[in-house]
Amino acid sequence: MTNYTIAVDLGGTNLRVAAVDEQGHLLEKITLGTQVSLGRDRVIHDMCDSIQQLMQKYTSSSKLLGIGIGVPGIIDMETGMVREATNLPGWANFPVRSEIEQSLHTHVILGNDSKVATLGEKWLGAGRAVDDMAMLTLGTGVGGGLILGGKIWYGMNGMAGEFGHWSVEPEGHPCGCGNLGCLEQYASATAVVRMAREAIATGKAPALAQAATDTEFSSRAIYNLAVQGDGEAQRIFRRVGSALGIALSSLVNGLNLPMFVIGGGAASAWDAFAPSMFEELRSRSIVYEMTAPAQPIDGSQGASEEAETSNLGRKTIITRALLGSDAGLYGAARLSMISGH
Amino acid sequence: MTNYTIAVDLGGTNLRVAAVDEQGHLLEKITLGTQVSLGRDRVIHDMCDSIQQLMQKYTSSSKLLGIGIGVPGIIDMETGMVREATNLPGWANFPVRSEIEQSLHTHVILGNDSKVATLGEKWLGAGRAVDDMAMLTLGTGVGGGLILGGKIWYGMNGMAGEFGHWSVEPEGHPCGCGNLGCLEQYASATAVVRMAREAIATGKAPALAQAATDTEFSSRAIYNLAVQGDGEAQRIFRRVGSALGIALSSLVNGLNLPMFVIGGGAASAWDAFAPSMFEELRSRSIVYEMTAPAQPIDGSQGASEEAETSNLGRKTIITRALLGSDAGLYGAARLSMISGH
Repeated sequence: MTNYTIAVDLGGTNLRVAAVDEQGHLLEKITLGTQVSLGRDRVIHDMCDSIQQLMQKYTSSSKLLGIGIGVPGIIDMETGMVREATNLPGWANFPVRSEIEQSLHTHVILGNDSKVATLGEKWLGAGRAVDDMAMLTLGTGVGGGLILGGKIWYGMNGMAGEFGHWSVEPEGHPCGCGNLGCLEQYASATAVVRMAREAIATGKAPALAQAATDTEFSSRAIYNLAVQGDGEAQRIFRRVGSALGIALSSLVNGLNLPMFVIGGGAASAWDAFAPSMFEELRSRSIVYEMTAPAQPIDGSQGASEEAETSNLGRKTIITRALLGSDAGLYGAARLSMISGH
Repeated sequence: MTNYTIAVDLGGTNLRVAAVDEQGHLLEKITLGTQVSLGRDRVIHDMCDSIQQLMQKYTSSSKLLGIGIGVPGIIDMETGMVREATNLPGWANFPVRSEIEQSLHTHVILGNDSKVATLGEKWLGAGRAVDDMAMLTLGTGVGGGLILGGKIWYGMNGMAGEFGHWSVEPEGHPCGCGNLGCLEQYASATAVVRMAREAIATGKAPALAQAATDTEFSSRAIYNLAVQGDGEAQRIFRRVGSALGIALSSLVNGLNLPMFVIGGGAASAWDAFAPSMFEELRSRSIVYEMTAPAQPIDGSQGASEEAETSNLGRKTIITRALLGSDAGLYGAARLSMISGH
């Protein structure tokens, strides 16, 4: 009889529910659209429905170790309340955990989506060989996660890891959190599109203006222009990189961890933002300067493997996440396993 | 037979060597000037001489648990090398630990002075009741220390805690570390004097200009003017506070610890910088906003005690250090005790 977990990755767009075994094999995955517009109760109903479907299927042959749920918001780990969830209107200050537990008649563990994804990368991805790491996830916003001694560092209320709300430009762009110049105002997919629209408004970015007529004008389209050599698009990703470099310099100076990982959808623009990110980091971080590998890790799996063996424990590795959009599911599975319900 | 340790606080100005028992009682303290101008070897000789003097005196009646030495520099914990020491010319990239061990014929443990002071505050000062805390020490520079699970968080090379080199104004004043706009360029005693000289140069700070004719023009003198109501001096401490608030907002958002302590000599200007520090923190940190006590802790011991009982584990306490200039000595004693030589 194998052991398995149920993992949920609740996103603003997709709701994914999976059965994952304790070695990290995906047994089955259900992907639904997140019906945000139909309200919180509907989303929770859909989630519980899929969880029960998988439980019924696997419980006869396998032992359920736990149910882990990644949620895009700030979670109070003690109460199981979502304190803030920008992409889930109506979820803030709602006792999500107890609502789900009442519906399922069993314990679940909630975790912030970025922290959960970080745990996934630690378990099966870029951080497999280290015990301490931090991750920045570049998506609609910028999330963060911190793993110390192999475990998520929650802080006293479960709110640690909000690196996306670090001030990288103290008098910069207003953020929804109330601060000015947060990292996520420069390094999220949303920020890339905003910076492109700002460039278009100056009248000096014709290629971006042309691309913006497409209804699906996205950070991906802007990245494609950067790759094709458009100067304005390239400038935007240099801004992404310098913002990341400022935040990373604080992370490296403050925590001196062996590994920092960049994940989330917008991390796929790595080659457009990484050069300015490393440049900023080298010029700003005295600890990075003292501990940098001879060549920065370029984010490919091969380089990261090499780094793991040759530099481990002495050099600061900055690298790309390896699990892509599955990091959250694997992390939720792992979360339910190690929290011991 | 009691157990004791020998603790050393090596500063750019004073060299203090003490015998401290395992309950944290100071048995004896030797204070010497640090003869920086006579060279590194002379300073190490003076230090070892005082250590041996105390060892000879106490070893007959007590068991020596260890020797801990706080050094103002970035230390590679594995090699015992000082990697950077701005206030100790000639010490960088020198194997300080093995030099001292050869002279004393016994093990010693070196620690960065601010990390060691943080451990002192954790052991006997502001952080007695918490397991996790960070401290900023405002002195010639701005140092930092991080305690997680009751122990110093060193990071992989022993270089964690360099919060003084966080960019709080990314295009701001150049720092000796190579970065621009480091916290220590706005919140150290050195920075206070520099900002005063900048104000004097504008011709609009007559009281500061008058005070600057004194050969001992210091951050303390500028603080006294602020207390007396001088607007320019007050503006300088508001700048100190806002810089601290930016750094604290990142610390709170990133680590969600129960306590953050401000120590070092310039922390005595608390009432001049704290209002703008808390204002900045409230406006910038979403995690602080969610976890702030109803009233910020005013830095007095009474308030801190009250906070310890009523808010512990749920609220973010920002408070003053309690041990003053002895934090480093007590921390060095504690360091030698828990490192287990």
